[in-house]
Amino acid sequence: MTWDRAVTRNDVARYAQVSPAVVSYVVNKGPKRVRPETEARVLEAIRVLGYRPNAAARALKLRSQEIFGLVLSSGGNALFVELANAIEDAAKAERFAVILTNSRASAAKEREHLRNLVARQVDGILLASVDAVPDISDVSAAGVPIVLLDNTGTVPAVPSLGADLEGGAYAAVSHLIGHGHQRIGMISGPPGDHPDGRETGWLRALSEHGLPEGPLLPAKVSRFGGYQAARRMLAFPGAPTAIFTSGDAQAVGALRAIHEAGKHIPEDVAVISFDGSTEAEYTWPPLSTMRQPVDEIARDAVTALLALKAGGGTPPQHRHYTTTLQARGSCGCADTPA
Amino acid sequence: MTWDRAVTRNDVARYAQVSPAVVSYVVNKGPKRVRPETEARVLEAIRVLGYRPNAAARALKLRSQEIFGLVLSSGGNALFVELANAIEDAAKAERFAVILTNSRASAAKEREHLRNLVARQVDGILLASVDAVPDISDVSAAGVPIVLLDNTGTVPAVPSLGADLEGGAYAAVSHLIGHGHQRIGMISGPPGDHPDGRETGWLRALSEHGLPEGPLLPAKVSRFGGYQAARRMLAFPGAPTAIFTSGDAQAVGALRAIHEAGKHIPEDVAVISFDGSTEAEYTWPPLSTMRQPVDEIARDAVTALLALKAGGGTPPQHRHYTTTLQARGSCGCADTPA
Repeated sequence: MTWDRAVTRNDVARYAQVSPAVVSYVVNKGPKRVRPETEARVLEAIRVLGYRPNAAARALKLRSQEIFGLVLSSGGNALFVELANAIEDAAKAERFAVILTNSRASAAKEREHLRNLVARQVDGILLASVDAVPDISDVSAAGVPIVLLDNTGTVPAVPSLGADLEGGAYAAVSHLIGHGHQRIGMISGPPGDHPDGRETGWLRALSEHGLPEGPLLPAKVSRFGGYQAARRMLAFPGAPTAIFTSGDAQAVGALRAIHEAGKHIPEDVAVISFDGSTEAEYTWPPLSTMRQPVDEIARDAVTALLALKAGGGTPPQHRHYTTTLQARGSCGCADTPA
Repeated sequence: MTWDRAVTRNDVARYAQVSPAVVSYVVNKGPKRVRPETEARVLEAIRVLGYRPNAAARALKLRSQEIFGLVLSSGGNALFVELANAIEDAAKAERFAVILTNSRASAAKEREHLRNLVARQVDGILLASVDAVPDISDVSAAGVPIVLLDNTGTVPAVPSLGADLEGGAYAAVSHLIGHGHQRIGMISGPPGDHPDGRETGWLRALSEHGLPEGPLLPAKVSRFGGYQAARRMLAFPGAPTAIFTSGDAQAVGALRAIHEAGKHIPEDVAVISFDGSTEAEYTWPPLSTMRQPVDEIARDAVTALLALKAGGGTPPQHRHYTTTLQARGSCGCADTPA
């Protein structure tokens, strides 16, 4: 069968010997009820004829495509794979599908994705932006619901969800201090106009324990970014004995750089990270990291979008999520089998 | 602005002082040409009013949503993240968006995704199935174009694309033999009705070199699957000195198991894998692997779908792709900086 001779609702009605309206009731599960025998006959006709209700016509009627757009900032963020999967699941539970786009750390690409999704009239957009303060003017102008992910509430009147960066970083660095480290460096993300909570938390932990500020190197949020930064940091005079990275991908790169330098982890250099991706569990040594509650964030993000779409309700706000320490071998903790 | 008082084409036409048809020409980039000054006026009106052309109405007219569905079998396959990104790029170049779904190694979930995508009337489906011989009856019955990924041509009359598994495995195992290994085990995927080309290639390399068949352990296609299998394999009497895994995720798990057993890689146990994901570059030691040409596969998959959608043309066929050895530290080759 091809598009050119598509089976219509009338074909199904004729085959099942019911009215076209009854076919609609079966397909849409309402609004009127259909007797089980009749429903079975309609379903059999749909199966035999290979009928597909016209999705475009349905969307036109419902004024909804039941599709969300997801814009991720980077394939390099180890957690985003898991976040995308979790969002897909959460959306599916509400009968929504998800169009996935990836801006690969490019703000221009991000705006292009946003514009395309707006043009497609998706029912809402979830955005993990390249920028701390994303430019969502095209989305706002079009009145499309949007919720920011991996964000700290930087856009007024737009709901956002994000991990408690400062609290998580403070806990991670304090944990390293508990292992006896006194020179703790940080590999951060690219510098932006907005201060990063992880940097603030790292500094606060150091200063509260009377420790000097360790070296700070900004790097791309990727394995390669972390690799390069760690290589440089290890070559510093008085190189740190421990490194905190702003994400798992960077930490994975840092581990490679430390191994290559012939140093032992965690004896010579300890590492602790932020994210809690599955990849972190299988590095060598396994990576200690502050885990974000990905499934919870995904569910809340979809709920927030649906609330915006429905209109009214509570005003947009920022929700932040506490991270939990996954202590493994890279920080000096005992490791357990996977 | 909300959905309830959406700006219409007529509003734009009035604001720009043109006819509604001219607005359509600008929005659809044709069929008639519009003078640059007029186009600028229309675009300005669109911007000011926040007009969004009705995507559902357009889809109804075009009989196309310009959306492909992508069904991946597992979040555990290290390469699928890169494949999904590459497919998104290739589709975007043709103005198509991609709905991503993940069946998490469940055949039931896979059929559900396929049915949902058919109901949405996507323009085509790319399927990396859980099964060697996928059940695509719902898709075929509906006449929706489908192309199989990560497949070896197992469904007659359905185009498929996949790596040359046997050739790649043969090359990988021969490489290990070149490093002097004589007891080479394999961690394969879950057993199925269809023989896996990687297994055949592994066996052929061993037998052509007069080596005994090493231990073979089927495992889930995941880091944890590879971890468990490697743990068991290392405990065998006469454990192998080298392991070939059917995918990078399994190899990543195997590396952790070998480290935990206190053995050195590659001196005590060498590892070589299949896929060529970015993750493989940052394990310790970095993972030698047979790289699949992901971008090429993604482009060809989208081209094949578009050809099916257009109808006619060459009959469906299987295309296979040669893999190339990325020799790194895990097999015993010298490693270069990332």
